[in-house]
Amino acid sequence: MKNSVNRELPDAIMKDLDYKPFESVDFGQPEIQRHAPKVRATTGTDKVVDSLEKVVTENLEDGMTISFHHHFREGDYVFNMVMCIIIDHGYKNLTLAPSSLTNTMNDIVIEAIEKGVVTNITSSGMRGTLGDAVSHGALENPVIFRSHGGRARAIESGEINIDIAFLGVPNADEMGNANGMNGETAFGSLGYALMDARYADKVVLITDNLVEYPNTPASIEQTQVDYVVKVDKVGDPDKIGSGATRFTKDPKELKIAKTVNDVIVNSPYFKDGFSFQTGSGGAALAVTRFLRQSMIDNGITASFALGGITKPTIDLLEEGLVKRVMDVQDFDKGAAHSMKLNPAQQEISATWYADPANKGAMVDKLDVVILSALEIDTDFNVNVMTGSDGVIRGAVGGHQDAATAKLTIISAPLVRGRIATIVPAVTTNVTPGASVDVLVTEAGIAINPNRKDLLETLKSVPGVPVYTIDELQQMAEKKVGKPEPLEFTDRTVAMVEYRDGTIIDTINEVKD
Amino acid sequence: MKNSVNRELPDAIMKDLDYKPFESVDFGQPEIQRHAPKVRATTGTDKVVDSLEKVVTENLEDGMTISFHHHFREGDYVFNMVMCIIIDHGYKNLTLAPSSLTNTMNDIVIEAIEKGVVTNITSSGMRGTLGDAVSHGALENPVIFRSHGGRARAIESGEINIDIAFLGVPNADEMGNANGMNGETAFGSLGYALMDARYADKVVLITDNLVEYPNTPASIEQTQVDYVVKVDKVGDPDKIGSGATRFTKDPKELKIAKTVNDVIVNSPYFKDGFSFQTGSGGAALAVTRFLRQSMIDNGITASFALGGITKPTIDLLEEGLVKRVMDVQDFDKGAAHSMKLNPAQQEISATWYADPANKGAMVDKLDVVILSALEIDTDFNVNVMTGSDGVIRGAVGGHQDAATAKLTIISAPLVRGRIATIVPAVTTNVTPGASVDVLVTEAGIAINPNRKDLLETLKSVPGVPVYTIDELQQMAEKKVGKPEPLEFTDRTVAMVEYRDGTIIDTINEVKD
Repeated sequence: MKNSVNRELPDAIMKDLDYKPFESVDFGQPEIQRHAPKVRATTGTDKVVDSLEKVVTENLEDGMTISFHHHFREGDYVFNMVMCIIIDHGYKNLTLAPSSLTNTMNDIVIEAIEKGVVTNITSSGMRGTLGDAVSHGALENPVIFRSHGGRARAIESGEINIDIAFLGVPNADEMGNANGMNGETAFGSLGYALMDARYADKVVLITDNLVEYPNTPASIEQTQVDYVVKVDKVGDPDKIGSGATRFTKDPKELKIAKTVNDVIVNSPYFKDGFSFQTGSGGAALAVTRFLRQSMIDNGITASFALGGITKPTIDLLEEGLVKRVMDVQDFDKGAAHSMKLNPAQQEISATWYADPANKGAMVDKLDVVILSALEIDTDFNVNVMTGSDGVIRGAVGGHQDAATAKLTIISAPLVRGRIATIVPAVTTNVTPGASVDVLVTEAGIAINPNRKDLLETLKSVPGVPVYTIDELQQMAEKKVGKPEPLEFTDRTVAMVEYRDGTIIDTINEVKD
Repeated sequence: MKNSVNRELPDAIMKDLDYKPFESVDFGQPEIQRHAPKVRATTGTDKVVDSLEKVVTENLEDGMTISFHHHFREGDYVFNMVMCIIIDHGYKNLTLAPSSLTNTMNDIVIEAIEKGVVTNITSSGMRGTLGDAVSHGALENPVIFRSHGGRARAIESGEINIDIAFLGVPNADEMGNANGMNGETAFGSLGYALMDARYADKVVLITDNLVEYPNTPASIEQTQVDYVVKVDKVGDPDKIGSGATRFTKDPKELKIAKTVNDVIVNSPYFKDGFSFQTGSGGAALAVTRFLRQSMIDNGITASFALGGITKPTIDLLEEGLVKRVMDVQDFDKGAAHSMKLNPAQQEISATWYADPANKGAMVDKLDVVILSALEIDTDFNVNVMTGSDGVIRGAVGGHQDAATAKLTIISAPLVRGRIATIVPAVTTNVTPGASVDVLVTEAGIAINPNRKDLLETLKSVPGVPVYTIDELQQMAEKKVGKPEPLEFTDRTVAMVEYRDGTIIDTINEVKD
């Protein structure tokens, strides 16, 4: 079968997994029966245990679904700690359902796959050796890639039914009250992990910092926690967030950032009380810097900044240019450490951030978002999942979710090295063109033809040439030529869910 | 059938309502499948509506369960506003499931009962004309009385399945982010209402204070809210909490308060890091005052104070004598207004406060609690529900829940006017004697015989004579004589649940 973005989907798998093809970015207003956990009541007198191994062996069974969060990012020790025990005990057929997988987890996941310990994975993304292994057919069943909002939706609906959540925290008391704000390995918002704490049947906190009872604020509450395991170290503080927040000095990136800002400032959304999500990375920080100056120059303040948060966004909050920071994840130490100091930096869960199946998420109120792309095609579809070699090396993240903003800007260079960013058709369609409004490149911008209003508004901004996206694609092709078409086998190695749980694309095994 | 506290229970009703008789205060560790709401997804663009009537008529159906909170107490306007509309539209057979009913709600509930609009009620309690009407058989089906923790448990298990929650709030934004801390009608903690917001299929916020989006902190989150209705006034600020916090000058009350403090101070629980719940009322405030001095004198600080919170408890927090205030409800303006200023005053939900069916509630960590009694009998069973005339005039509140503390003290005078407080058998058994440790009266104390350890510890405290509870009962009887036995009909008008959902007692129609 084909879906509405013209992707051929494997009938057998679609039927097996009870999937529907992607149709529309409009979620509608369905009535949904929520899932709820099975809870073992306790007064909590013996929650604190020394042995992670004991918790695993007394609770885990073959075939279960286990989850983790990725808030420690490349500084995570918890994932490996738990997975080592699981592999050593020879468990089989587990489903791995973390909020995402970082590179530091790759080796152990590959080992778990090879030994049949893990046979199913759902994640926001994967990179490096793991993405490579999966793209070469290492995993028995297709990976399910979900956006952050899509994961929240799937957990709430029971499509992801977590038996045991193993959640590393930088502090916890003996009953399991915990937050992400205090301690040596503080990472700020616990946004993604809040879903696991609410919906997993069993919740295991793992911490190196047992604090006095009662520990407040409690982002994770004692009512949700079965075990508190004390370990030596949950993470490497130096690798949790990027320490420095350096602005790009690359002239091309600066050009793009300036143009992104020109698009925002000249759009109808740039007015007092607007909201935005800029994301992380040097280019995003540059956008934040330009936007800051424009806000000052025009006397405009924002009602909220959303998303993964960086220090420069906190600076805007402290300057009074942004009234609230709605924070599902912190990308650097500055943002992580300010959460406990700034009441206006509100921790939000993944469902509040981006779930299409609740009664209104932050992304539903978002005016402007700047997103990246590995590829964008002439229908404005975006790929943030597979590289130019067809291999998995990315993550859906909040891409699909935030693209529902009123003004969705994709910021991308025409080419990267010898590879075109703008292509006739994306290798993997992650975010449908219907939700993308403007592409900004160093050469100029392209506006989605379904946004005639924006075309009218932006057609004569000084220094911002407007092209059709086909023209930009041609420019890119001129620079680097036509690539050889990629070759894949017939085997599906991953399904990419749209945030509503339909299938927007699949990823096949690469042919070497 | 009889339950383990020797109360005769009506077999037919027990079977009809699928109830088990009360057995033990020990909840055990059952595994419980939680209930979850049915949610209508929305992006929230049209949540704000002017007409409460429209919300009611478009969503309410005969036979549904509706809920309210009682945080506005005697200053509540919301309950009457909603119920008027419901009565005017002639709805039938509704179940009323508020967190409790205050006197200001009595007239309209009686009208709703008389007109067949409301045929079932579950509440923490009722007083005045409503208690009188129900005790005289006004309601078709028996009222179900539940403790605050028991209500949380019943909501989580689906025994209370709320179709629509009507929740008044002192502030909300257009998406439904709300808290109890800001605005003219601020009442502090939204503790009880948090259950309704999480578990009701539809959540209607009613506010007189629509604030800028996004409103933080959000105790109730936009993801939970279907409608935000703007009205002129949600309550009378002067009647929400007792303004003044006057200490009692009654010598008998002061004597009891001092003795309560002597019991605490001489118990093994009075040590650094202990925890307590004192409750409200002039006598409770006097206990807090004595306790404060003892803490200073002995260099002892408390890890937390729990429960319905008053300003004197906040003073202890600000003095550093208490490290955390765990706050499910605020009894006065001082406590309500300090919540937004004191990060150590943590808002907790009813489940976190007292639910026996989660993974650990605050009451499970409670060392010392002081509770009141309308009657206490020679088996230490406590009645806080029916008066000496057998008429309903009280509330379970957190009584059963907090009585699970390590040291449960009932503070009560031997007699009130011509009525004995200590009786051979309570009229209505609300809190089983097995969970009560010490009775403190102005004449002396009695210690539950199953607490031989306490008897040993407290037997020689200067100025604190120890009696058996039979001796104290005799003293009371000597003062006021034996009352005529109460007369009831065979008709059951109310079931009193123990916090675990079994039936500890029933209340019958009074014979006039």
